Amino acid sequence: MKAKVYVTLKKSIADPQGFAIKGALNKMGYDKVEDVRIGKIIELDLGDVTKEEAETQLKVMCEKLLANTVIEEYQYSIL
Amino acid sequence: MKAKVYVTLKKSIADPQGFAIKGALNKMGYDKVEDVRIGKIIELDLGDVTKEEAETQLKVMCEKLLANTVIEEYQYSIL
Repeated sequence: MKAKVYVTLKKSIADPQGFAIKGALNKMGYDKVEDVRIGKIIELDLGDVTKEEAETQLKVMCEKLLANTVIEEYQYSIL
Repeated sequence: MKAKVYVTLKKSIADPQGFAIKGALNKMGYDKVEDVRIGKIIELDLGDVTKEEAETQLKVMCEKLLANTVIEEYQYSIL
């Protein structure tokens, strides 16, 4: 079972990396670019598990390891 | 116009960060996890541009700044 986890900074948290990329794009001539935010994709191969097991596992993995829920939010999709 | 860019390492490139996460998940008891790969999501607000302009801009942005096409591949979707 394969899955993708998307981890992004919460809206209220400043994103200096995104801000730097916005600055670089503006300097490259893309001066209409208003906002850039960076996140992570984590592609997992969960091995031989059912869809229900995958769902339960992913939730725990995200809460405990993959995302820092103080500043980040996550979404996952099972493929 | 908003867009999302997904940048991932090419399949042939080793991903030590993903490997470390796989190790951590295996130690947490998820020993069926077979593979983990890490990528980036870049969420952009391109401002007031048409869909065609957005598409052209994104391609150049990815090639020139957002992805290192020697080791990474990218996909984008316009929302």
